[in-house]
Amino acid sequence: MTKIQLYDTTLRDGMQGEGMSLSAQEKLRVAHRLDELGIDLIEAGFPSSNPKELELFSLLAAEHFDHAQIAAFGMTRRRGAGAAEDPALRTLAQCFAPVCTVVGKTWALHLHKVVRVDREENLRMIDESVAFLAGEGKHVIYDAEHFFDGFADDREYALSCLRAAARAGARTVVCCDTNGGTLPHSIATAMGEVVAAMAPLGVAVGIHCHDDAGCGVANSLTAVAQGATHVQGTINGYGERCGNANLVSVIPNLQLKLGYRCLSDAQLASLAPAAHFLDELLNFTPNPDQPYVGRNAFAHKGGMHVAGVNADPTTFEHIDPAVVGNRRELLISELSGKGTVVARAREAGISLHDQGAARVVERVKEREHRGYHYEAADGSFELLLRKEAGEYRQLFRLESWRAIVEKRADGRVETEATIKIWVDGERYVRTAEGNGPVNALDRALRDALTETYPHLGEIDLVNFKVRILDEAKGTGAITRVLLDASDGDQVWGSIGVSENVIEASWEALVDSLEYGMQVSTRTAASPGS
Amino acid sequence: MTKIQLYDTTLRDGMQGEGMSLSAQEKLRVAHRLDELGIDLIEAGFPSSNPKELELFSLLAAEHFDHAQIAAFGMTRRRGAGAAEDPALRTLAQCFAPVCTVVGKTWALHLHKVVRVDREENLRMIDESVAFLAGEGKHVIYDAEHFFDGFADDREYALSCLRAAARAGARTVVCCDTNGGTLPHSIATAMGEVVAAMAPLGVAVGIHCHDDAGCGVANSLTAVAQGATHVQGTINGYGERCGNANLVSVIPNLQLKLGYRCLSDAQLASLAPAAHFLDELLNFTPNPDQPYVGRNAFAHKGGMHVAGVNADPTTFEHIDPAVVGNRRELLISELSGKGTVVARAREAGISLHDQGAARVVERVKEREHRGYHYEAADGSFELLLRKEAGEYRQLFRLESWRAIVEKRADGRVETEATIKIWVDGERYVRTAEGNGPVNALDRALRDALTETYPHLGEIDLVNFKVRILDEAKGTGAITRVLLDASDGDQVWGSIGVSENVIEASWEALVDSLEYGMQVSTRTAASPGS
Repeated sequence: MTKIQLYDTTLRDGMQGEGMSLSAQEKLRVAHRLDELGIDLIEAGFPSSNPKELELFSLLAAEHFDHAQIAAFGMTRRRGAGAAEDPALRTLAQCFAPVCTVVGKTWALHLHKVVRVDREENLRMIDESVAFLAGEGKHVIYDAEHFFDGFADDREYALSCLRAAARAGARTVVCCDTNGGTLPHSIATAMGEVVAAMAPLGVAVGIHCHDDAGCGVANSLTAVAQGATHVQGTINGYGERCGNANLVSVIPNLQLKLGYRCLSDAQLASLAPAAHFLDELLNFTPNPDQPYVGRNAFAHKGGMHVAGVNADPTTFEHIDPAVVGNRRELLISELSGKGTVVARAREAGISLHDQGAARVVERVKEREHRGYHYEAADGSFELLLRKEAGEYRQLFRLESWRAIVEKRADGRVETEATIKIWVDGERYVRTAEGNGPVNALDRALRDALTETYPHLGEIDLVNFKVRILDEAKGTGAITRVLLDASDGDQVWGSIGVSENVIEASWEALVDSLEYGMQVSTRTAASPGS
Repeated sequence: MTKIQLYDTTLRDGMQGEGMSLSAQEKLRVAHRLDELGIDLIEAGFPSSNPKELELFSLLAAEHFDHAQIAAFGMTRRRGAGAAEDPALRTLAQCFAPVCTVVGKTWALHLHKVVRVDREENLRMIDESVAFLAGEGKHVIYDAEHFFDGFADDREYALSCLRAAARAGARTVVCCDTNGGTLPHSIATAMGEVVAAMAPLGVAVGIHCHDDAGCGVANSLTAVAQGATHVQGTINGYGERCGNANLVSVIPNLQLKLGYRCLSDAQLASLAPAAHFLDELLNFTPNPDQPYVGRNAFAHKGGMHVAGVNADPTTFEHIDPAVVGNRRELLISELSGKGTVVARAREAGISLHDQGAARVVERVKEREHRGYHYEAADGSFELLLRKEAGEYRQLFRLESWRAIVEKRADGRVETEATIKIWVDGERYVRTAEGNGPVNALDRALRDALTETYPHLGEIDLVNFKVRILDEAKGTGAITRVLLDASDGDQVWGSIGVSENVIEASWEALVDSLEYGMQVSTRTAASPGS
């Protein structure tokens, strides 16, 4: 089994993506998580570019990594000057990182129109920059920018750029599809020639793809099939424009379907949590449809799927979800039957007999007809199960609530909510302001409840979606609110439906907190069980 | 140039995706949009499954499509019964749709474990179902479910399923990667054999992929390279689990990079708006990183990129974004919008000089930064233009409004709104109830205004959408409200943005009514002009 060297550039190329922002400390956490995952090389950034990067490199220098090596990134020397005099290359040479990745030009169009360097000088820039860093004892990786465009334009020149790097001492030469528009068949042709041309030079060949044509993953696999043994990409495909090749898809494809070795089995089983960790840290909602690791990636709807999966999971699943740290999701919808409900109850540790399950199915159907939709509201669904099984505990009894929004002539908007509730025989009246009526209700309710349930303070509302059903009824339409909440460990969804957006939100909010409390009770109880 | 037949299954397979929900009327709008885009075949659903689908098919039967044909979907007959006696196949035969797509089994594992049908009976089911529909004059397409798993398991049997369909009169046999985990190299091998095996039978070969390995697009391209001429997929890759093959990526790849013919140039230039239209209708946030059509797909950051693009766009762009209806996003430029603004003003009969247009561009940019989005809010945009041109007339001056929502212990929710406004020097105080706070505000405001502006009584709010921006902030996030209003003749959109959902709705409501009044003034004035 050929071992593939995994090169993660989340912290450098990935950071070019929209909305990507991490402090030096957060980048350190990412590096450790990538190390645990089993990434071989972690590109941390340009050590020379700014104080934040300098801080990151000095932090990294003091860290221990079990497996991964840190790579520092830079460009070939400026034209017409010596490599040893180039300040950026000198910083690279002095940086603690054992691996240096140098990017250089390959495509004549760029030489003419962007950097205004002639072809021969470009080859000297590659040669001298790589030789300088190799001479300083660095493990050098050469990134050939716009390689595939260059290859299509002038095959021989593109190969001569790679040869210059290889002869100057690069350990790996990487073909980059920088503009991201190359398709697999072109990647295959070019990589076949590259691998053949580099073989006599004893240099490894790598691939670096982007997803502008929706083929970033397939392009990476194609390159490996042609003999590349080093793959660059980012976690979750972060990166500018349409993103970089997504390592979270590339890795299981290589290892589970193509017979290459990337990670240990235990590391592969931490892929989904690692992918979600990165999203959480970056404050992105994880893409529920992401291959292998998304919440929906192994979701089944409808009776036939559920029956098939029960008989033999391979009937409807291309891999065992546990292998990548994901799990099967049996979606609850009006199409689902009793079997799905029973299976979900079992998962949640709720004992529900057949008759109860049948009643839940009826209940779900009736509620979906009114606009409920339990697929994304696993928390609300579990509360339905608990109510049916007699395992439901109400957090409080409502006397009333009131939300007031006022707009003044000066444009100021004020929002206030008052709730009156009973908890354990005690009456609580609380008023809170908020930046909207639901926010104010949330605050007032928590204010009243946290005295009795301090754990509620740990629950955050992380996602709030409003959908108007039957939009064509204008403001008289039914509103469906979906809330996601998290206690920092688990995320759950809840739902509310009403003609009134505030009432729908309230319903989802209450489900959200009630579910959160059932979970905490379950967790607290588990050591004794 | 080979023409590729495009088969869209957004309305059937796409609807299996999480959160996909469309009324029959909305599906009709989708079908028309797909027709305009140049899709050849539109799979509308199962005509037999439920009242909503029956309603859709009866609506579709009455519609005219310029180019597209409607396909109805069904399964092979039940085991051990005649095709002509199968109620679902009879419904298919009786349905107006000229095209019928029939799905059947190919994989022995499914025959044994899921449907419990023997191999010979399965071949008869395929044969008789296709023959029955072809005999009824239908253009029959045969979808071979789990084809690639079946092919890997028993190559000969998989091919014999296709042959059965072809010999029974199917015009196209489609190889489906139902579980979505097949990689391009396996698709290439299997499709090569399929195309060779089907050639003597005179039947076209199609491909239907899913994205479970992140290769749905590449797999579709690979199949075409092997000779498939019919491609199934969905707009934006909607579909269960990780989604179907994304036609929005497949189409430009085939047409712009591989030399196949899919759409006319004008149709291809409507690809991005069509993709966004679908997202809007489904209330999904368009993926900004989506290949070809995403807002970031041609975004350039940093001076070198911008200089390169100015020198020659091909340095940093894999295609010209205008070809797919997208545009370059230069994160420092401002000139782009002025021409559009002047053109829009001219259309609305508003005289706006260059300087004014430049100020509108600035205003729009600043507001889009805060979450506004004028693509679907033409009414609000025209009000911006009028304000700049000094042609804006305020309907009323606000003193204040207040909305109260109360929930009682008995579960009853009461909503009341009071507005205080000045119209032509006269103060109006009005209170109204409603089924939600926005509905109550709308009623109170109209009650106060219709005395002065009776025409407002003719304006209906026909559509109301709420989107939470920055969903990850929970209930503290920014809310964008889009309203569509109509006077029975014209439909216009308006927008409001605020942390407070009620305030955002109010803003959109006021724009909606103000725009409605400007239109009526214009219409009333036009005979004299």
